[in-house]
Amino acid sequence: MPQYERILITGAAGRLGTILRPGLAHLASKIRVAGRHPFDDLCPNEEEAVFDLSDMDATIAATESCDAIVHFGGASVESPWQTILDASIRGSYHIYEGARKNGIKRIVYASSVHAIGFHEIEAQIGVDAPVRPDSLYGVSKNFVESLSRLYWDKFGIESVCLRIFSSFPEPTDRRHLWSYLSFDDCVRLVEASLTAPRVGHTISFGMSDNKVKTVDNTGANHLGYRPQDNSEPFRAAVEAKTPAPDPKSLSTRYLGGFFCELGHPDDESASVR
Amino acid sequence: MPQYERILITGAAGRLGTILRPGLAHLASKIRVAGRHPFDDLCPNEEEAVFDLSDMDATIAATESCDAIVHFGGASVESPWQTILDASIRGSYHIYEGARKNGIKRIVYASSVHAIGFHEIEAQIGVDAPVRPDSLYGVSKNFVESLSRLYWDKFGIESVCLRIFSSFPEPTDRRHLWSYLSFDDCVRLVEASLTAPRVGHTISFGMSDNKVKTVDNTGANHLGYRPQDNSEPFRAAVEAKTPAPDPKSLSTRYLGGFFCELGHPDDESASVR
Amino acid sequence: MPQYERILITGAAGRLGTILRPGLAHLASKIRVAGRHPFDDLCPNEEEAVFDLSDMDATIAATESCDAIVHFGGASVESPWQTILDASIRGSYHIYEGARKNGIKRIVYASSVHAIGFHEIEAQIGVDAPVRPDSLYGVSKNFVESLSRLYWDKFGIESVCLRIFSSFPEPTDRRHLWSYLSFDDCVRLVEASLTAPRVGHTISFGMSDNKVKTVDNTGANHLGYRPQDNSEPFRAAVEAKTPAPDPKSLSTRYLGGFFCELGHPDDESASVR
Amino acid sequence: MPQYERILITGAAGRLGTILRPGLAHLASKIRVAGRHPFDDLCPNEEEAVFDLSDMDATIAATESCDAIVHFGGASVESPWQTILDASIRGSYHIYEGARKNGIKRIVYASSVHAIGFHEIEAQIGVDAPVRPDSLYGVSKNFVESLSRLYWDKFGIESVCLRIFSSFPEPTDRRHLWSYLSFDDCVRLVEASLTAPRVGHTISFGMSDNKVKTVDNTGANHLGYRPQDNSEPFRAAVEAKTPAPDPKSLSTRYLGGFFCELGHPDDESASVR
Amino acid sequence: MPQYERILITGAAGRLGTILRPGLAHLASKIRVAGRHPFDDLCPNEEEAVFDLSDMDATIAATESCDAIVHFGGASVESPWQTILDASIRGSYHIYEGARKNGIKRIVYASSVHAIGFHEIEAQIGVDAPVRPDSLYGVSKNFVESLSRLYWDKFGIESVCLRIFSSFPEPTDRRHLWSYLSFDDCVRLVEASLTAPRVGHTISFGMSDNKVKTVDNTGANHLGYRPQDNSEPFRAAVEAKTPAPDPKSLSTRYLGGFFCELGHPDDESASVR
Amino acid sequence: MPQYERILITGAAGRLGTILRPGLAHLASKIRVAGRHPFDDLCPNEEEAVFDLSDMDATIAATESCDAIVHFGGASVESPWQTILDASIRGSYHIYEGARKNGIKRIVYASSVHAIGFHEIEAQIGVDAPVRPDSLYGVSKNFVESLSRLYWDKFGIESVCLRIFSSFPEPTDRRHLWSYLSFDDCVRLVEASLTAPRVGHTISFGMSDNKVKTVDNTGANHLGYRPQDNSEPFRAAVEAKTPAPDPKSLSTRYLGGFFCELGHPDDESASVR
Repeated sequence: MPQYERILITGAAGRLGTILRPGLAHLASKIRVAGRHPFDDLCPNEEEAVFDLSDMDATIAATESCDAIVHFGGASVESPWQTILDASIRGSYHIYEGARKNGIKRIVYASSVHAIGFHEIEAQIGVDAPVRPDSLYGVSKNFVESLSRLYWDKFGIESVCLRIFSSFPEPTDRRHLWSYLSFDDCVRLVEASLTAPRVGHTISFGMSDNKVKTVDNTGANHLGYRPQDNSEPFRAAVEAKTPAPDPKSLSTRYLGGFFCELGHPDDESASVR
Repeated sequence: MPQYERILITGAAGRLGTILRPGLAHLASKIRVAGRHPFDDLCPNEEEAVFDLSDMDATIAATESCDAIVHFGGASVESPWQTILDASIRGSYHIYEGARKNGIKRIVYASSVHAIGFHEIEAQIGVDAPVRPDSLYGVSKNFVESLSRLYWDKFGIESVCLRIFSSFPEPTDRRHLWSYLSFDDCVRLVEASLTAPRVGHTISFGMSDNKVKTVDNTGANHLGYRPQDNSEPFRAAVEAKTPAPDPKSLSTRYLGGFFCELGHPDDESASVR
Repeated sequence: MPQYERILITGAAGRLGTILRPGLAHLASKIRVAGRHPFDDLCPNEEEAVFDLSDMDATIAATESCDAIVHFGGASVESPWQTILDASIRGSYHIYEGARKNGIKRIVYASSVHAIGFHEIEAQIGVDAPVRPDSLYGVSKNFVESLSRLYWDKFGIESVCLRIFSSFPEPTDRRHLWSYLSFDDCVRLVEASLTAPRVGHTISFGMSDNKVKTVDNTGANHLGYRPQDNSEPFRAAVEAKTPAPDPKSLSTRYLGGFFCELGHPDDESASVR
Repeated sequence: MPQYERILITGAAGRLGTILRPGLAHLASKIRVAGRHPFDDLCPNEEEAVFDLSDMDATIAATESCDAIVHFGGASVESPWQTILDASIRGSYHIYEGARKNGIKRIVYASSVHAIGFHEIEAQIGVDAPVRPDSLYGVSKNFVESLSRLYWDKFGIESVCLRIFSSFPEPTDRRHLWSYLSFDDCVRLVEASLTAPRVGHTISFGMSDNKVKTVDNTGANHLGYRPQDNSEPFRAAVEAKTPAPDPKSLSTRYLGGFFCELGHPDDESASVR
Repeated sequence: MPQYERILITGAAGRLGTILRPGLAHLASKIRVAGRHPFDDLCPNEEEAVFDLSDMDATIAATESCDAIVHFGGASVESPWQTILDASIRGSYHIYEGARKNGIKRIVYASSVHAIGFHEIEAQIGVDAPVRPDSLYGVSKNFVESLSRLYWDKFGIESVCLRIFSSFPEPTDRRHLWSYLSFDDCVRLVEASLTAPRVGHTISFGMSDNKVKTVDNTGANHLGYRPQDNSEPFRAAVEAKTPAPDPKSLSTRYLGGFFCELGHPDDESASVR
Repeated sequence: MPQYERILITGAAGRLGTILRPGLAHLASKIRVAGRHPFDDLCPNEEEAVFDLSDMDATIAATESCDAIVHFGGASVESPWQTILDASIRGSYHIYEGARKNGIKRIVYASSVHAIGFHEIEAQIGVDAPVRPDSLYGVSKNFVESLSRLYWDKFGIESVCLRIFSSFPEPTDRRHLWSYLSFDDCVRLVEASLTAPRVGHTISFGMSDNKVKTVDNTGANHLGYRPQDNSEPFRAAVEAKTPAPDPKSLSTRYLGGFFCELGHPDDESASVR
């Protein structure tokens, strides 16, 4: 018998949402997949909720009857302020209000390495290090980390904030060789976050078991996450097609990679990949 | 010759803004006082800027020709989300954007004890402790602390975030006996923040030299702030008219005081003093 | 040739003593098994010592001719004060006095998770964290941890204090899934403690290699303990027969589990399992 | 109006108890002075309780009708085990049981530097450092520090454990020049411990404002203790009559002073000053 | 295509230099092997540089056209001051000056456990612990660790300082059972140091994956070093031929082993193995 | 009666040596003043020792019959390598060898802020922070800090390494406003270092009680140093004649000030003030 009645997955049409849908299926009787557009590939165990996170009433309504939320919706890269504000800041507030009003027990939130992107690699920070966002995107992650702390301390809703590094089908650049989080490990990490006996308010980094480790995740050991993958199988290919990194470039020096080099997203000339 | 050409003070009509106007006068050739309504008491060294912080263009315009900002505007207590969002989150973003566009060198921001209000007194936290807001108000303080970190790391604008405890004419309850920041000390703290040779991004607690100390401000010693006042002259009167605190109440246990006991500000039944 | 001449095992008739008898046999020419009643299953390498730990002279006599002690005797669960006092506090003092008078080199002591049972799981404490006992039983463990520190600093007797979590034939409840110490790993841990080249005064947590880790044992890495077991083979069965834990219950929140919920053992109404 | 109804002072006939009787008089309507012999100098605000701490029933009875306890009774120097056991370990247990049964709110306990006497001076330990007792006396202090932690975490009785260094009429040896706690400062420290708004379970060092500082008491700043005295007025006299210390002697190297050099108190040949 | 054009290996005729020559061959188009005497076993991928490290001009000349240096030259054990001065202090200065003048990007330096040899095993120090050398040899290692920090902070030359424990063909004494660094793991460690994307100035301990771990190398996890060997295969033989260690001897107590017991190398009576 | 028989002051003709001669006179029966040239102003309590620190035999001879050394000799600013090597590295080795051969008990060494000059001001480092020298001068300070640690751990000679910031007649630039150590405070600091009961191996920062504090000297509180001066009386004059600092310049950002901007002293074009 699954642990949860109904898990809401926001951002379910996104890159990671798509792999979480089948990956978390065994944890709940029903998965409610949320997105801005109708889904054309619903599985029997799924039901859909179509709404925009910036719509408070709709968002709160979508959390009804759920007992856990996997909140991966909102902006997924650096974006103009208005997008960050509506999708990530206001949208996440709506999610937490839904959780409070509808008695949700636990939320797993897709925070990001960009919440602490301006820390140096050699600093080997732990999960308790002060925030150093590398973008408005990162600032919005700090906002939700703070908001979720309040909702735990005051309203008793547990949260795990996952500072995901680079979760892609495979590593495609040199930085990915240490920041890679395989899709399977991503599912393992979210599953661990949903099933750990007690999380209170926990912040965890999210990476596979890559050789080069740039942060210390000891503080999240109670999640029980054990990565099974690593970037070594992709190393030769990546190194063959990309030059050796410049250790002094901002992209190599700081955890956040090229986000640290981005200009302001509201500037016309800002380059956002 | 003053160090600054023109300092913008937001929230200049507020409780603390009002005492900062004369207190900081010697630091700049001109003080630009900002508020939502015209000022009827402008001094010769002052000029006014009347606008609402939620108005991005107006806010940015108000920062022109300034080289420092003392940002004390926005919500001053726990408030409904929409107020927090418009006045404190959006408003502060507008301030930092003004700073970026107009070459402001340094910003002194009125953060608050409520940014870390859910830490226990006995924990004796330092300025680097993880955030634990006690209210939406506190969450908005964390947002600006994060935003200002970004604007330092990426755009080179220095900030001092002052986690002000209780700055009132005098202590009026038992908690104030340790949380009191006298108006004169408040001015000293902001002046130190404006004149310290280097602040980068600094977080500092803001209290007078009260006997009971509940946090460790060592990490901000480079500001050069030396409080001259304390709550002892008021102790007898306060103790005479208020009962001894209950050590187990949330208000006594946590740094944030009664904010920790407030309900959600968006609930109709929420009590907001 | 074994490292020790004669190892005294107290509590040798107990749950763990019983598995340590054969498990440590290869480390000494002779194992002296101690208990309150005669043993009817002595092996050729064993000799018995029958006495009550509260009897100072008898306890000291039992340590003669030994060069190491594995002190697992005394109360094994929360107990009335008089029991804790006689068996655990006075009894352990007698053991250390025997060690001092008879030149014992090293003692391995069965401390317990209950010595630090009121720390929160998310705190991820290390072995140096301040004590927070969850019971009189835990207080007595702190007493011996302190006493053994004195006997090292002043009298040069090495001690390893093992804060054993849950050492049972197999995990039987949800908490055991992270607190489990298999019998084989328990033997490994005691063996490592006896054979490590230098321990001085070392405190170590004692768990198998379970997925969920709730403490940080880095500070005891010089013992050379490598757990080989974990609770995963038992997970399905345990989860099938026990409900999901309530993250807010004292039992789930704190390391000590249900000990944190026990009343005072001297109260008639106290429930002691 | 005093904060407390009735404060029980144990060890009221001792060196420090004698100065605490008048020193704390203003804090309670009634001071109950406890000792093993009748008092012949009772003041109008005082009442006596004559009993031996090793007598559980009598001790519990003596705590009735009190709302705070200043527990300075028990052995005051290194002593034979039986004395430590009866007066300090069993006696303190009886006090805490009295507190639990009679609803006492707060206990101020005379712990001692000897609870951490084997830490080196250069280590500059804080109040959270692991225990390193230098004597059975010190071990008994650790016992009560642990016991009082339990009674806070489980039974909600607040405690302040004061690790008093050297409280004498005046410094009489070189070590006292840094370990001195004047009688007036001792009273200030206990008063602060009784009146601080929240102490939970707090450990504090107890010294005057001597020039040489050997520990870091930052962790107890919420007590509001401000020493007013120091050892300088006595320096010339002390230095004139005592030789310069040998930096390598145990007495100078460790916080505990000559206690670190004492033999075992149960040995006939042990020298106990 | 190898990452480097030309790597200079100093001390190439030494015990570790000899195994690094083939071990690092794949990382550069050319390996320049440096020693005081001509090499009679040059491989096709190698070229030699024959000079004495105390000769500044020759040393600088030897670094020309290289883009990385593996600096394993200089005294390899405790030695008279004049040797330490010429070979290790002056010699290393010459190397860093060569690096500065010739644009070398990264240096891997053979520091040693003896740089922190007087730390206790139970302290479980990390790479950031204050230095505690156990010999003039160790002092010279601290000198280069400091010098290399300067050349990174001021001149932008990256360095990895490897505090190698005991790298021999196999463990030959009891201490080696925890201090052993196999030759293969030594090559892995240097290779990781040369290929990690960013090292800035990194200090790392150098050991194989031995059971007993005496230091915490978390701070160097960004090197990506994964030891594959350990001392277990040699345990039985070592234990058979050497007595159990005395936990109180300086050699067992401190990380530096017998170096801690050596007299001063400039004394005639000093024993230097 | 003074504590010492004979104190050797090296660098006695230098800026600080000159003020230490009278300042320390009361601490010893005789002050031996050392310099490279004869002194023409010897006081009755003084005797001279004329030699070059690079002369090992002469240096060792100069330490005979002394029981303490105040080692302020050697290079006093950034200098060419050969000068640093001879005067600061070799010279200090000679001093410590003299101390070892002649039974000196304690050495007070003039280290410098430049030993940790590349730490940022906001980092608020303590005395245990890893070294980050800003010059060859700073590297030589680290060398002596390491060497003195060895001579304590192995040979039992106590040392205090004083990381002096800016000790001049008065502050002359903006940085001095926080780095100033008045001459009187300098004497107080050395006196405290000579008379503290136990120093073992202690590192201390050396500044007056200036308002802006850039480091945390808590770890040296056992010296008993209490600064009496500060830079405020000079502030107005300094600020009048020097521009406000640029917070982003290396000189303002790092503790070491303009030393961080110096080129290499062996380069012809290097600017050394």
